[in-house]
Amino acid sequence: MTAFSFRVTHTDGGARRGQITTPHGAIETPAFMPVGTQGAVKAITHRDLESAGAEIMLSNTYHLYLRPGDDLIARRGGLHRFTGWTKPILTDSGGYQVFSLSARRTIDEQGAHFRSHLDGSAHSLTPEKAADIQAQLGSDMAMVLDECLAHPAELPAARASMERTLRWAYRARDRFLALREGLAPDVTVSNPGQAQFGIIQGSVFPDLREESARQTVEVGFEGYAIGGLSVGESNDVMYEMVGATTPWLPANQPRYLMGAGTPEDLVESVARGVDMFDCVLPTRNARNGQLFTSEGRINIKNLRYAEDDRPPDPACGCYTCRTCSRAYLRHLFAVGEINAATLNTLHNLSFYLDTLKRIRDAIAFGRFERFRLAFQQSLSRQPQDQ
Amino acid sequence: MTAFSFRVTHTDGGARRGQITTPHGAIETPAFMPVGTQGAVKAITHRDLESAGAEIMLSNTYHLYLRPGDDLIARRGGLHRFTGWTKPILTDSGGYQVFSLSARRTIDEQGAHFRSHLDGSAHSLTPEKAADIQAQLGSDMAMVLDECLAHPAELPAARASMERTLRWAYRARDRFLALREGLAPDVTVSNPGQAQFGIIQGSVFPDLREESARQTVEVGFEGYAIGGLSVGESNDVMYEMVGATTPWLPANQPRYLMGAGTPEDLVESVARGVDMFDCVLPTRNARNGQLFTSEGRINIKNLRYAEDDRPPDPACGCYTCRTCSRAYLRHLFAVGEINAATLNTLHNLSFYLDTLKRIRDAIAFGRFERFRLAFQQSLSRQPQDQ
Repeated sequence: MTAFSFRVTHTDGGARRGQITTPHGAIETPAFMPVGTQGAVKAITHRDLESAGAEIMLSNTYHLYLRPGDDLIARRGGLHRFTGWTKPILTDSGGYQVFSLSARRTIDEQGAHFRSHLDGSAHSLTPEKAADIQAQLGSDMAMVLDECLAHPAELPAARASMERTLRWAYRARDRFLALREGLAPDVTVSNPGQAQFGIIQGSVFPDLREESARQTVEVGFEGYAIGGLSVGESNDVMYEMVGATTPWLPANQPRYLMGAGTPEDLVESVARGVDMFDCVLPTRNARNGQLFTSEGRINIKNLRYAEDDRPPDPACGCYTCRTCSRAYLRHLFAVGEINAATLNTLHNLSFYLDTLKRIRDAIAFGRFERFRLAFQQSLSRQPQDQ
Repeated sequence: MTAFSFRVTHTDGGARRGQITTPHGAIETPAFMPVGTQGAVKAITHRDLESAGAEIMLSNTYHLYLRPGDDLIARRGGLHRFTGWTKPILTDSGGYQVFSLSARRTIDEQGAHFRSHLDGSAHSLTPEKAADIQAQLGSDMAMVLDECLAHPAELPAARASMERTLRWAYRARDRFLALREGLAPDVTVSNPGQAQFGIIQGSVFPDLREESARQTVEVGFEGYAIGGLSVGESNDVMYEMVGATTPWLPANQPRYLMGAGTPEDLVESVARGVDMFDCVLPTRNARNGQLFTSEGRINIKNLRYAEDDRPPDPACGCYTCRTCSRAYLRHLFAVGEINAATLNTLHNLSFYLDTLKRIRDAIAFGRFERFRLAFQQSLSRQPQDQ
């Protein structure tokens, strides 16, 4: 009785336009998922997030597992009921934060063992445990636990890691199916319509990427993610790896490039058949005063904006651009007002979500290549205000 | 050609209901003015502020004079154009912050001399300068510079200070009229319809309060404020001083109690004929996790709310109460999310503004005394969650 489905409605070269259906509503793809680490996108309210055009929020399993805990959230009826966000939610597996945030972590075949970055308490995250936590959170899309390899990696290490991720994928899928069938009575399945995505690894080695993709597809998931990119490699390598992976993924299932990226990364990855993205760039940079605009990136704290009465982006129709000048935003940032973060975040997310909308429109009208070229040219023309 | 006017539409005992008209729209009174110190109410956007029911914002002259500067704001066309807040704005004179925030301040007959709390730069604030800055800001209501006396004060000091404030009132009014007539070409009058309020002082001495009121009214302003209260004296003394002042103020002009207070302070002061209030309590306490509710004050960070699925205030219809549980708000506060401040602020302001609306309705229906008694009883019943 899974309510999850995906259909491609248009293709244009390698790019696809489609729609994901979940128990909490539909998402037009290609889609960008704002990051709501702890059950809220930083600095804005859910209604601000909706006003920016978001159709889905990503939340982080590691953070929610530690605080307030997946048990507490399950007792509230799951993450949707707890947070009041009524649209779809995707949760990651927690693995990435274990690898990047936690203290004294060790990895073995069983899983990851670590101490909380908050209080030093000891925890283990296994493929089964990651599935259990996400079942309790009740997200609409759950991710398998994968091993996150540092970049750069040598081929033997990359192969070993990719193979371990594959073994973990089988365990994660088995657990997910057991949860769906009610065979784990100590776990609350908050969302019976949850889907599970496998993750392709293989570092920067095209052969490994192909092998990982073929074998992960054999496990059988509702969707597939490309992991281990946007971790320090060059743009060209990232695009090459995406291009080396998507041909081996099923055409009728969604593809998610994890953790990317800049607006140009999104456009280039859509060209290679990616349907979903998440990244902290628009939200984190907003809090630091960097705004993405159709005229390039601007740092609103610069003195040159102190008397600039133009909106942040004259081509943008978001609340911030409709009501605030650069001069006012600079003032709010300079004096340390909290709502500088709110207004900047609202704009950056609107810029990202609007870019995805323009991508979808271009695909629907068979004009994606033209859009992509114009986008590249506008970027190369723009002075980047760093 | 002043567009400022006030009319009382209903009276009920000492309480009055009315309407202030300004160049930027009308305000129903009794009114509460959220404090937007630096041209923005902390932690919320203007649209959030409007959604809470605010009809006017107060801004602080001292802060805006230092950053970004009244010259810069005047070049933008004034505070409304600069901030994008289109409804009425009242500015204070800057005096209170000079007395409470600035470094190495000295006061003489000329005015206040101080160093910026930001960079140590030297400044003087005189009655004329305070009028000039506010003319450049272009607020709808400007305040005269008064001397802010510390509490407690002996009678001789209180008399001397009250008399100086009165001499300053004449100078402030002279300058205001000169500005209105275009006699100060070096000052930009951003809002030709600006009104000016005098301020009654006199510490906790009823005779001084009466004398200050009578003589300030003789100067002649568009409205009158009661200053020097809510500075550490008891509630009863504050109410007594309000009651000792309002009888000497014109019935057909607005009365503004500066810096007060708790919801009960507002009700008690309305009973004594006050029309306008401002206070940082709802916004500052919100950022610290304290929520005003119809069931008493609650501290959302308390563990007892970790699994409380009720809204902050079941009787409130604000966005926060419609969409967030206490459990979720506690989580956001506990993990340090910025939007905890946003959501708490939105609720507290809604509670204040809704209380004022209920006061206005009660006055219109001749039921203010009943409302006041019920309000007092509900407060005495409530466990205060500190």
